[in-house]
This record gives sequence, C-alpha cells and structure tokens, in this order.
Amino acid sequence: MSIQIDRERLIETMETQADIGGTEDGGLHRLALSDADKAVRDWFLEAMEDAGLETRVDRMGNMFGRRSGTDSSADPVLLGSHLDSQPFGGIYDGALGVVAALECIRTFNDEGIETSHPIEIVNWTNEEGSRFQPAMQGSGVWTGELDLETEYNKTDAEGVRFEDELERIGYKGDVPAEPTTEYDSSLELHIEQGPKLENNEKDLGVVTGVVGLTWGAVTFYGAAEHTGTTPMHDRQDALVAAADFITAVRRLGGTLGKETVASVGRADVSPNSINIVPEEVTVTWGIRDPSDDVVEEGRERVLEEAAAIADREGVNYEWEDRARSSSIRFPERPVTAIGDAAQALGYDSLDVFSGAVHDAAKVGTVCDTAMVFSVSEDGKSHTEEEYTSWDDCYSAANTLANAVLNLAE
Amino acid sequence: MSIQIDRERLIETMETQADIGGTEDGGLHRLALSDADKAVRDWFLEAMEDAGLETRVDRMGNMFGRRSGTDSSADPVLLGSHLDSQPFGGIYDGALGVVAALECIRTFNDEGIETSHPIEIVNWTNEEGSRFQPAMQGSGVWTGELDLETEYNKTDAEGVRFEDELERIGYKGDVPAEPTTEYDSSLELHIEQGPKLENNEKDLGVVTGVVGLTWGAVTFYGAAEHTGTTPMHDRQDALVAAADFITAVRRLGGTLGKETVASVGRADVSPNSINIVPEEVTVTWGIRDPSDDVVEEGRERVLEEAAAIADREGVNYEWEDRARSSSIRFPERPVTAIGDAAQALGYDSLDVFSGAVHDAAKVGTVCDTAMVFSVSEDGKSHTEEEYTSWDDCYSAANTLANAVLNLAE
Repeated sequence: MSIQIDRERLIETMETQADIGGTEDGGLHRLALSDADKAVRDWFLEAMEDAGLETRVDRMGNMFGRRSGTDSSADPVLLGSHLDSQPFGGIYDGALGVVAALECIRTFNDEGIETSHPIEIVNWTNEEGSRFQPAMQGSGVWTGELDLETEYNKTDAEGVRFEDELERIGYKGDVPAEPTTEYDSSLELHIEQGPKLENNEKDLGVVTGVVGLTWGAVTFYGAAEHTGTTPMHDRQDALVAAADFITAVRRLGGTLGKETVASVGRADVSPNSINIVPEEVTVTWGIRDPSDDVVEEGRERVLEEAAAIADREGVNYEWEDRARSSSIRFPERPVTAIGDAAQALGYDSLDVFSGAVHDAAKVGTVCDTAMVFSVSEDGKSHTEEEYTSWDDCYSAANTLANAVLNLAE
Repeated sequence: MSIQIDRERLIETMETQADIGGTEDGGLHRLALSDADKAVRDWFLEAMEDAGLETRVDRMGNMFGRRSGTDSSADPVLLGSHLDSQPFGGIYDGALGVVAALECIRTFNDEGIETSHPIEIVNWTNEEGSRFQPAMQGSGVWTGELDLETEYNKTDAEGVRFEDELERIGYKGDVPAEPTTEYDSSLELHIEQGPKLENNEKDLGVVTGVVGLTWGAVTFYGAAEHTGTTPMHDRQDALVAAADFITAVRRLGGTLGKETVASVGRADVSPNSINIVPEEVTVTWGIRDPSDDVVEEGRERVLEEAAAIADREGVNYEWEDRARSSSIRFPERPVTAIGDAAQALGYDSLDVFSGAVHDAAKVGTVCDTAMVFSVSEDGKSHTEEEYTSWDDCYSAANTLANAVLNLAE
C-alpha cells in the first residue's frame, strides 16, 4: 500500500510556519524560547489539536501529539524534528521535519488510515543551541544524556535563564522530560545541509547513520616581541605555529579516511597587532568520520601534530578536548522502511551518513531510529540562502509518510 | 675633550619620570595627552626652566628647550625623544632619550661648557601611536610629512579629538609645528627594543640607519559551510589559505635577506565558529630590511604568494597596502660623532640598523641625524618587563653627551 501526501498543503504549511519569525530576506530568525518560538509553538499546538492529536508538553518544552493505534499493546512510532532556527537561518532546517510529520498525520486522517501502532509527532526544544547551549537540549534531556536542572540553569548571552524563558512563553509543561512509554521506532526528516545529494543528482537521502566527532582546541604560547627589532631566529611566533597546525588539520582531512572531514573553524590571536609577534593563539579543531576508530586516530594525530609543531617553533602549547560524540549506525529496520518507501515511490535515493548531528542521534539511544534527508541546494544551511525546492520537500515528506505507514502498520 | 655626566642624577631623574604614570608592576602607563602625560610635561617644563633653557611649545604640543650658543650664526643641535608610553609599557622607551638630553644640558651647565652652536632638547608628542594614530605624530607634523589639521581631528577609541585633548592638558602651544630655524644636526638616544646588542655583548649601539618597511593586509574570501556536512574537496576555506600565507611570509623572512624580518601580526577570522568553515580571514603582514630593494622585492613576493594561494585554495582575495617607509642611512657626520664618542669613552659599540622606526627617522628628513641605542635586556619592550641596566643607561647617555659636544663645539 502506498499513499501520497497533499503537496499543496505541505507547501502552504511550510509557508505558514516560515512567516512566524520570518526575515525580510526570506530567512527565519526564530531562536529557542523567543517570542517567535512561542508564536510558532502556539500555531503548532493548535494544528496538532485540529488534527485530532492528543497533545502534551514536557518539562523541557518538548511538544508531543499522539494519534492512537488500533493495537493497545503496540508502542508508538515517533516522528518529528525542531521548530527553532539559527539566527537569520533558513526556513527548512528543522521546520520541514515537523511540518512533514504533521502532514503525515493529516494525510492518514484524510485517507481514513488506521495503524496498529500509535503515531506521535514531536517538536524538540532548542535543537540549534545558538541561544542556549548545548544544541539538541530538549532531546538531550529527554533521552537522559543531559540533566533537567542543569539545563534549567543555563543562561543566554543576556544572562536570561532557560527555565525562566520557558515559563515566560508558557511552555514549561507538566509531563516528565523523558520517554513515558516504550517507542517502537522513530523517524526524522531533515534537510541534508550538505551537497552530496545535489552533487549525485538524487531525490533524497536515506540516512544510515550519523558520524562520530571529536572537537578540541589547542593554544600555542610564544613571545610577544617587536616585529621590527626581533630577528627571525629569535622568535617564538604562536601564529606561525597555529598556521602550521591549520595546515596539518587540513592534510588530515584529506588523508585519514574517504569520508573524513577535518576543520579549524576558529583562530583567536593575541595581542593581534600588526607590529607585535603573536604571543598566544588558540585554534579549535574538529574531526568527523563514520568510523569512531578513524575519529580517534584523527584526534591522536592532531595531538601529535600540535606537539611536533610546538617543538619545531619553540613555543609551548596546551591541549583541550571540547566534545566527543560516537558515531551511530541506524538499525536496519527503520532504514529499510525509508529505503523501501523511496523505491516504491520511484524516487532515486542515496544512502548517506549524516555529517551533522541531529535530534535523531539522541533519540536513537532510546529506540530504533533513522532519518530521511531532503536535498539542500548548494549544501547551504544556517543562512537565509538555505533552499530546498518544493519538489524535494515533497519527495522526502512522501517517503517519510510511507515509511511511517510501513513501521506503524 | 671628554666629559662625564652625573650617573646618580641620571638615575634619579629616570626614577622621577617613571613615577609619573608608573604602574604597580614597575612599568609605565602614560598614554599621549592623558593626565599622566600632562603631569610629566609639567615636570619636564619646569626641569628645562630650572636648567636655564628658553622653552617653547608648538601647536602639536612638541616641547622644546634651547640653550644658547656663542656663535649667533650657528644652527642648533637638536636632542630628544618622547615621554609618552605604550599602555602598560616600560619606563625606558622614549623617556631615557629625553632624560639623557636634559642630563646633557645639566652637565654642560655644571661644567660651565659653552658651545658655539645652540643646543635644543625636545619631547615629541605621541611617538607611540597607541591612543591616537599614527605613531610619531608630533615629529611627523613638525617635519611636514603629516598635516596639522588632519591630525587635530584624529580621535581616540572613545571618540575624543586630539586637538581637544591637547587643549585640555594645556599643551596646545602658539609656535608653528615646523622647524622655525635651520638645524645643524639631531641626535636621539633610545633603547634598542631588540636583542642584538645584548647578544653581541656590546655596551651600546651606533645606529647607522633605520630599516625600510612595507605593511599591508590581505583578505581571503571563501565560503561559510557546515564543517560536518561539507566534503573536503568542496570547501573554499579562507583560514587554510591564510595559514598558507602566514607560512609563506615566515619563509620570506628567512630567505629574502640576511637582516630581513617578515611577520604576520594579526589574523581576524569570520564567522570564527568551531563548526563553520571560515568564510573570510584578514591577515596583516609586514616586511623590513635595511635595503629598500629587498623590502620592495618582499612586497612583490608576498603579493605573488597571496595570488598563488588563493588560486590553489579556490578562494578570492583582496590586497591592501597599509604603510610604506623608505630606509634611511644616517649621514656620516653625526654617526661618526657618536662612534668617536663611544670609542673615546672606552665603550664597546656595535653599528646597527634600527628595526623600529623612531622620531629620528622623521627628523632625519630635516637635518643630519643619528641615534644611540642602549641595550634592551632580552630585547623586551612595549611591556612592563622592559629593562635597561643603569650601567647601560649611563654609557649611552655619556656617549650622547660627548657626541653633542663634538657636534655643537
């Protein structure tokens, strides 16, 4: 059995949500727990109720809507993503997954489809992590990785507490922020935020896992000297060491593994004056790969490089780990459900690992989880230029609906 | 004829000036036109008057004191440096040259020495250029390189106008900020701010010239992408290009010429996030060498490197010149006067080129000029740790006094 969602309604719903916190340049500025976030939550709550769902909000503000199944002993299938955005981000990141989940429910309602498993749809609180850190805060607490009280006390750049904002916008719910039932499985549709699908001319991606990652920082300590009076051989230049390190990380990214990415995103230089040899430079580094072994090897090689470079340049250095996250391979059952749905609908899909971490990576620790990726034009995301054609939104959402039907039926 | 200055009075005068704007850690925080600068100017004016000098202040706040000569047709010999300091700088940079000039006058007075040429001592306004830019602002206007009205309208980081501050502290004088007479010659004593004298175990330096320099900036423009989802071969990473450039500048510093220094002091990264491929990085570069040809060749090679690197990394770039200054070879007459004085006093001196630019480089465009360098321990300057032993202060000041006697007699 194969169903088709309502393409026009999907577009219309996407446009409706995109107006809430929409920017002049067609992007979205809907930071977690902002007034715009409250407004889109109000809209989503009403939409879930209009669709006949039994709604609940948990203590982290995660919003759920439940459609009953025919088998009272069957565990629900969970669908969703997040409605918060990056500062001046795009209208698809997160929102497409929530809207597609809602559209699945509406389609099942229209078609009179009953499933044996209940279906729940969800809007996770603060996936982006740009106003309050860390990212995936709502799903992180829900799956037990983060502690509720600790997250309540997090503050934004203005010192505003997370819990206070959650109360202010009226979304500090009564339900415990944890799985209150067993779940059969979970699916998340998200934009790819990378160029692989477009480069391979695919309709959508079947996400087979999420890469492991390791993040850190290294600080090189040299000596601040006058650039005019200090001979080259008398220098301990922290920026030359950092440059060497940046080059080394780039080299690792090209040699560790076929899918390894290795990056230095930040460099902070002190005293950062045209006329003074740099004394202290902190660079961050990050390595991702589908294989945790490759990630670990990359981390060790970065450490070796830092030591060798500091020795060569005659500077000191300090090393700091900032984040580590294991890779996830999604289980065969939900991955196959997505791949089969795409194939049945005639879509050309690509099996991909996700280079970005998503709520699904958290939920995957609780139940069988997989993801659908829609095409991101030019791979752009976290910018107002983020774009996914309605055709690509539709094919991914349609695949999601049929995969859910497969799992819930 | 050889004279000896008063070592104890030199030390005492150095300590007196160092108390005005002195820091807890033994440094000096006496920014141009600050209250501390006013206080040290008040002290210096009184000291000049006590020494019987005819004082004047010009429209840039440059302070002069004149001791008459016996030959009414002879042009004066000018001696001095600057009393302003870097933020939390050292007590020797600039101040030693002004104090030594004052001590020369006092010694001549004590010894009843008459010179055929008048002698003028000077405190130049804002040599450091840290509060108001550019550096050597007072001497720059005085020699005609800078325009008075333009400099009057310069503002500090708080938006305070230079002229308003000059009036506030009472040092906007009536005398035109230009040479109101011909000068026979000019000498400046300054700390080396580099390690060459100490490394060669010399008592002082006879400065034969000031290096030429070229400063600029290059900005690389890449593409901001998600570090997790963008494959290595799809990146245009502005920071990788900048790292390559920093390495290239270091290489040039080791290969262009025996005395070339080449540095990247600043790097500003945007968006500077651990998780985003750097989109835009601006790095500054500077090259100095005694030979203008080498400096020019260095500039061209830096430009070639930037172009090659941008091409290799697939990024765009923009190029900007920020400063160029020709090298100066001090004329034989004042240089010989210093060298002869050092030799007569039994000091072991080294002929050196100055890697830093000083007021003397400006004054050198107006009359025959040379400099004496005193030893800088560890080459440190522009920091509270800056240190020159009293022995080294004394030998340099003694050399200055005898060189002046040679030129003025």
